[in-house]
Amino acid sequence: MKTGNQLDLNPVKEMNILLMNAGSSSVKWKLFEEQSEELIAKGSIERMMNPGSSFEIKFKDQVYEETIDNLSYEKAAEMIIEKIQEMKITSLDKIKAVGHRVVAGGEKFTKATKIDESNFEDLEGMKDFAPLHNPMETRYIKLMQDVMPNTPQYAVFDSKFFLDIPEFNAIYSLPYEYTKKYQIRRYGEHGISHTYLTKRTAELLSMDQNKINMIALHLGGGASIAAIKNGKAYDTSMGFAPLTGLTMGTRAGDVDPSLVPFLMNKLEMSAEEVLMMLNQKSGLLGVSELSSDMRDLAAKQDQDQQVKLAIDIFVNRIVKYVAGYFVELGHVDAVVFAGGIGENNPWLRQRIIEELAVLGLKMDVTLDNQNQEGITSKEESSAKILLVPTNEELEMIHQIKAEL
Amino acid sequence: MKTGNQLDLNPVKEMNILLMNAGSSSVKWKLFEEQSEELIAKGSIERMMNPGSSFEIKFKDQVYEETIDNLSYEKAAEMIIEKIQEMKITSLDKIKAVGHRVVAGGEKFTKATKIDESNFEDLEGMKDFAPLHNPMETRYIKLMQDVMPNTPQYAVFDSKFFLDIPEFNAIYSLPYEYTKKYQIRRYGEHGISHTYLTKRTAELLSMDQNKINMIALHLGGGASIAAIKNGKAYDTSMGFAPLTGLTMGTRAGDVDPSLVPFLMNKLEMSAEEVLMMLNQKSGLLGVSELSSDMRDLAAKQDQDQQVKLAIDIFVNRIVKYVAGYFVELGHVDAVVFAGGIGENNPWLRQRIIEELAVLGLKMDVTLDNQNQEGITSKEESSAKILLVPTNEELEMIHQIKAEL
Repeated sequence: MKTGNQLDLNPVKEMNILLMNAGSSSVKWKLFEEQSEELIAKGSIERMMNPGSSFEIKFKDQVYEETIDNLSYEKAAEMIIEKIQEMKITSLDKIKAVGHRVVAGGEKFTKATKIDESNFEDLEGMKDFAPLHNPMETRYIKLMQDVMPNTPQYAVFDSKFFLDIPEFNAIYSLPYEYTKKYQIRRYGEHGISHTYLTKRTAELLSMDQNKINMIALHLGGGASIAAIKNGKAYDTSMGFAPLTGLTMGTRAGDVDPSLVPFLMNKLEMSAEEVLMMLNQKSGLLGVSELSSDMRDLAAKQDQDQQVKLAIDIFVNRIVKYVAGYFVELGHVDAVVFAGGIGENNPWLRQRIIEELAVLGLKMDVTLDNQNQEGITSKEESSAKILLVPTNEELEMIHQIKAEL
Repeated sequence: MKTGNQLDLNPVKEMNILLMNAGSSSVKWKLFEEQSEELIAKGSIERMMNPGSSFEIKFKDQVYEETIDNLSYEKAAEMIIEKIQEMKITSLDKIKAVGHRVVAGGEKFTKATKIDESNFEDLEGMKDFAPLHNPMETRYIKLMQDVMPNTPQYAVFDSKFFLDIPEFNAIYSLPYEYTKKYQIRRYGEHGISHTYLTKRTAELLSMDQNKINMIALHLGGGASIAAIKNGKAYDTSMGFAPLTGLTMGTRAGDVDPSLVPFLMNKLEMSAEEVLMMLNQKSGLLGVSELSSDMRDLAAKQDQDQQVKLAIDIFVNRIVKYVAGYFVELGHVDAVVFAGGIGENNPWLRQRIIEELAVLGLKMDVTLDNQNQEGITSKEESSAKILLVPTNEELEMIHQIKAEL
């Protein structure tokens, strides 16, 4: 591996923070300046371990692209560090820390945490709480430690925000002994996003963050709704693992667990295989039999009954969760739309608010159609409605900087 | 077996209908006059197949009690018919039909149905939809056919009412192919009760039953909430099997299915065993570690934190379901309390309505404390609130008489 010697002749003034988001066959990264929190460069690797793996970096006006067959996870980690130095984006010694988004930190990891030999096994132990996400995220921490042994690696947890949920909302009605012994609770997801949304909404409304009551709709490929009371998590549609709650791109959302043995029997599958099916082949994709992508579905909803059904279900589950949270919060200052679907579909936001009419929510359609950050409700609405493009990276940087 | 010869000397004028409700170790029955629909006698057998099985009949002022060790299901069926003739309650030829409550009829059984050789196997095939209830209910139909071969046996289905639910509320976000192929949907439960409650509430409010929008809370050892639109089922908290939705006496209610493989692994159980645990050792019993009976919990809620937690969860889940249904119905005429818990705990009804304050529901506490059938809301309440003691037997008799 090359070292960054040539870059020392042209030193980067600011120190950098590298953020990584690892999936099963892809990894995305973004490099930020530590002080200004500005994005310097970003890149992605797709289709790893498959023919035609793609490696891409975007830096200022430059785009570096390369196609490599069956790119391994190890080689991918090396290439990122090698190429950002070759392209003179930064040098190894300027990267002050690497932050890894990790879905589940259980009850043990309560803040962004430097991962080293002392706690790596603890982190690996959290895989039960997000078996489809955590293992690859944890593996990337190890891979990056090998490539850059002198750079601290931080895990930033999506579950942290939801550790504040009161017990009656956090736990399931299981035998209490198991709830305690195996730390069974709603861990939530998108906690980094919901944290950002809470801070930003309070800013936009000039409210004290510790006094805001709000309902945040993070609607993307994964989707969750959080009830937030006095700035803290109060409820979440996501469950023990990031499967339940809303109908998502490929995830089923709420499902009767009685279907697990039923489908094991009918489909001759193991319990794990049934869960894979519920996570990867269900949701909008499963119902529509067309696509997991709301853009594809929106284009066909007037022609295709199954697509219409998928969208009807998607909206209905959102409406029922928002209604439940609105009532249990008692007083709501803001209902906030975010996430890829939430930020880009005025028709969907407006339909959801229309179906919530009983609660006194009133959208200003003209404002909402502008698709810009800010308030989109009418003056007489029972709570402010806002569109807030989420910024998980900014929140991750803040959490890491707080620990540096 | 004795025949009813001696009773011919003292003929019962009216014909009778016998209703049966079979559980895994108990069976309860009630005998009605067909025309007047009045209760003639009732009985129960408890702890079958166990030491000290109890056999009891109540008829006018008489109580017949007997204790028999390890009473078999076959012998129990025989004894019921034998004793009601010995006690001159009725004679075999006066029993026009026997009605059996059956939880699940799938999509096939859409009304009360006479069960004979032509459809017995179809009925047995419904066991997948309620594996903990249907097998014993079906077995009792066979047992009673053997004891009284000339008397028609009717199955009355708790699932029937919910076949009207619109598809977007009925189905899960699973691959649509499986939804269709395996008839996977919310079958609901307590449909016989919810049907009665809809009719009776319309009567009490002098409304057209086909125009009423209401939310019915059947709160007993099993508990479910139904959204009813224009007199038809629109949504239900119960799922594919009678496990999900509210926290119940021993049933967990909503649980992330990801916990099935997790608990199989931790507890070294099969999927079926995990489901048994979720059905029989969870809910109020599981959280409180004290009792599944609300009477026991109500007595301890001020002293015991875990009991308080169980009640807090019970109320919270009810509040969120009612809120969701209130909003999706758009207009609600009535919120109705019924079932053993719903009918006997003013403090609980009042707490639930208080937590629903955002919806404009207002209880008249003085009226509600009377604990009598009728309206219990204040004039200014956004919907009428009613207490309606349910009467599943009356509804079963009506459904059977419609088919005789």
